[in-house]
Amino acid sequence: MLCQTCLVSVNPPRGMRDLLPIEKTKREAALSKIRSVYQARGFQEIETPALEDIARLTAGQGGENEKLVFKVLKRGEELDRALADGGDLADLGLRFDLTVPLTRYYASNHAQLPRVLKAMQIGPVWRAERPQKGRYRQFLQCDIDILGESSELAELELLTASLEALKAIGINDATIRINDRRWLSKELESIGISEQSKAMIAIDKLDKIGVEGVRDEIEKEFGSEVAKNVVAWLGKVKTADVPEELEWLNSISNPESFRFDATLVRGMGYYTGAIFEIEHPGSQSSIGGGGRYDNMVGQWTGTSTPAVGISLGIERILDLMGDPDSNEKMMVLLVEDDFHEALDAQKVLSEQGWMVRIDRAAKNTKAQLAELAEQGFTNFAVFKPGEKLDIRQLG
Amino acid sequence: MLCQTCLVSVNPPRGMRDLLPIEKTKREAALSKIRSVYQARGFQEIETPALEDIARLTAGQGGENEKLVFKVLKRGEELDRALADGGDLADLGLRFDLTVPLTRYYASNHAQLPRVLKAMQIGPVWRAERPQKGRYRQFLQCDIDILGESSELAELELLTASLEALKAIGINDATIRINDRRWLSKELESIGISEQSKAMIAIDKLDKIGVEGVRDEIEKEFGSEVAKNVVAWLGKVKTADVPEELEWLNSISNPESFRFDATLVRGMGYYTGAIFEIEHPGSQSSIGGGGRYDNMVGQWTGTSTPAVGISLGIERILDLMGDPDSNEKMMVLLVEDDFHEALDAQKVLSEQGWMVRIDRAAKNTKAQLAELAEQGFTNFAVFKPGEKLDIRQLG
Repeated sequence: MLCQTCLVSVNPPRGMRDLLPIEKTKREAALSKIRSVYQARGFQEIETPALEDIARLTAGQGGENEKLVFKVLKRGEELDRALADGGDLADLGLRFDLTVPLTRYYASNHAQLPRVLKAMQIGPVWRAERPQKGRYRQFLQCDIDILGESSELAELELLTASLEALKAIGINDATIRINDRRWLSKELESIGISEQSKAMIAIDKLDKIGVEGVRDEIEKEFGSEVAKNVVAWLGKVKTADVPEELEWLNSISNPESFRFDATLVRGMGYYTGAIFEIEHPGSQSSIGGGGRYDNMVGQWTGTSTPAVGISLGIERILDLMGDPDSNEKMMVLLVEDDFHEALDAQKVLSEQGWMVRIDRAAKNTKAQLAELAEQGFTNFAVFKPGEKLDIRQLG
Repeated sequence: MLCQTCLVSVNPPRGMRDLLPIEKTKREAALSKIRSVYQARGFQEIETPALEDIARLTAGQGGENEKLVFKVLKRGEELDRALADGGDLADLGLRFDLTVPLTRYYASNHAQLPRVLKAMQIGPVWRAERPQKGRYRQFLQCDIDILGESSELAELELLTASLEALKAIGINDATIRINDRRWLSKELESIGISEQSKAMIAIDKLDKIGVEGVRDEIEKEFGSEVAKNVVAWLGKVKTADVPEELEWLNSISNPESFRFDATLVRGMGYYTGAIFEIEHPGSQSSIGGGGRYDNMVGQWTGTSTPAVGISLGIERILDLMGDPDSNEKMMVLLVEDDFHEALDAQKVLSEQGWMVRIDRAAKNTKAQLAELAEQGFTNFAVFKPGEKLDIRQLG
């Protein structure tokens, strides 16, 4: 349908979504449970603006995501000047993740934060990706990060807290694959690869393109000798022991939920140690991931600060969840024209735990009530001032 | 402080804010209470994307706000074409309120919504205003709207629900000023003003510029005869009776909270009936407002749909609130290197209702604990595996 005056579609922008009441209710219920788990484990919620300086969003930390930034046009004289000079047209951009803003936040606010910051962030991020099934241009992330802690205590807290959060919303069989960039780097060097980022991008595709595909990509970049080494290495590491860097994995209390994966790489350039990806049998792609990024905060502040984070992909996680339990006390109160009295009755009923919607009785109340039953309402009553309410089941 | 590589400040963009943990906690606690009140009264929460088509945000519905849109640059070939042709550089914009997106949402999704939609929205909006104290370029709005209901039941529900929501967060002495655009329009016509929007903008400034100021503005636009009429009218309506259009105000249950104000105008062009503004003795500006806008949905759909909404200005409301009650069960657990055992203990303690933060004991634990006391932690314990925890008060 087209808007009558502005002649654009009434749909949301391409790749973005409206949430219906039932979808929003499910989302908020899940977030509330995840938030409680993280808070109980000492994570403090923070918030940053949706916009960041464009220079920060394109400073080389975000990997491929930097190409996907929605850029915000300069305004007023600054725009005029940019147009006249052929200068940059944008001064701001919508964040593509919550990690770059977090490190900026820490640099800006550290004097008012504890030395070790355990942060929780829930918020939308934007990426101008080619829209496709299950992938949106605005989507919600839920991150926890620990800044200022160099030991594996940080990794252990993130991993156990995120599994607990998933359990709190009924997702019990998630497992986490873990690798370490330091170990991976040494391994690649030992088989003759020094310029590693391109090799890592190729190995990262193993699940999608198979060993043959990885070999072809490596051969193109590094020649057939190195490609042969990589194939041999991929065969060998399938059964590799947990490396020294991840030794702490061996004494974890619930080892069945964690698995060392020598071929896990992840896309971002900023990781410096442990990396993780959360997987679930019901989802083809990972439902979360993260890792250690010890050098990123230092880039803004000049002072090195260890950091590690994990992000839950809320959209995919919601797809794994069933419909939420319906509230069994949702009532429609049908009124004629005694609005004031009905509002007083609504107040009393809501104090009794009812969720009460007041509607003027339509001519066809049957259709009216059927429509509201579909929205989750369970009961109805016809309001008559001075008479006792007869609350009846809907549908 | 400047970022070392991108050479921009580590502060958030001009006019935007980072929220510290204590600020975010206060905000989320308030929103959770407001949300509960609205839900108990049958409002269903929905969500729309932050971005809308730029044509919709500049279609003439948003008044002055349309000049304040943050516009998003086109991407890829479309941008190249726009630059080559001198065409529009932006295709999207950040929403400046929640009302324009809501009416677009209703037009797009009405087949899956109840005939009368009682919607709740909580979300950020963006306006490129000149930053000043208490006014931000990204700020949160919390709106309820009723679409599809032409009677004053809708106004009554919005007004009582919003006062209840304010009470739920401890703001008991808010009052609502009410006027009606239909009545106002007839009055202005009777004193010789037919092109009314400019006159309304002048009268809207009465609080700021006084009767003299209003007279000057009217005189400039409409001549001295009309200006004299307006001054006389301003004197007369101070004691005017509630007009017929607002007769329903007379039978309201708590009349002390509502006040007819003949000079209330509001800025937006889209209002068609009742208009309201929420005021509080602790705030110089209004802490919320809204009104009926019966013609706006029809603009997108071609089918007229009555609509009325009210918006709470969350930033100003938070300023009126004291600090939130502190959680009295926030514990710091100091560990040496028994991370796994400490994590197990954390789980048990959190099941007992504790919020437990694990920290490695610093060399100077006194400074460490003092810093955490400032963050709201109330207790601490030193963790030793196998030993009973001695939980002590902090500070």
